[in-house]
Amino acid sequence: MAEKLNDRSALDPLLAQGWELVDGRDAICKTYVFANFIAAFGWMTRAAIWAEKLGHHPEWSNVYKTVDVTLTTHDCGGVSDLDIKLAQKMDALAE
Amino acid sequence: MAEKLNDRSALDPLLAQGWELVDGRDAICKTYVFANFIAAFGWMTRAAIWAEKLGHHPEWSNVYKTVDVTLTTHDCGGVSDLDIKLAQKMDALAE
Repeated sequence: MAEKLNDRSALDPLLAQGWELVDGRDAICKTYVFANFIAAFGWMTRAAIWAEKLGHHPEWSNVYKTVDVTLTTHDCGGVSDLDIKLAQKMDALAE
Repeated sequence: MAEKLNDRSALDPLLAQGWELVDGRDAICKTYVFANFIAAFGWMTRAAIWAEKLGHHPEWSNVYKTVDVTLTTHDCGGVSDLDIKLAQKMDALAE
């Protein structure tokens, strides 16, 4: 089972890449903006397959070319290594 | 260009199918719950392709097996025929 991050500095590289801490909740969030809907949903599709493969799923919303993502681990009630792994993968897929 | 619905009774069949009017905004919304993430995102993928084909896109969010959809037409600042068409298609894809 996932455990809450002990070493919060593990988040620093993500915070440098546009991820932010969510107010009032142990979670991280990021807004991705793509060229258009096809690019946005194409990215979501690739990220969705990775999420399923990792067994860890995002909270996310999409309006046309914008995707808002929030990551947290419900099992442990906060940010875990799984969130870091999925966030890194999402960033890589968006490059 | 899309025009706001004149005949609001055109919404009745959707309201009977679980769509609701959004408070404080001329929009309709519905929550779909699927068996799991694969089913939820699979449905989103089919709906996304239809949205692109219709040239009309949803505001939607997904958490695991749940998808919340809001439809409105930004061009006309309210619900139009395009929203009815996309809502009907989404319901058909979810059957």
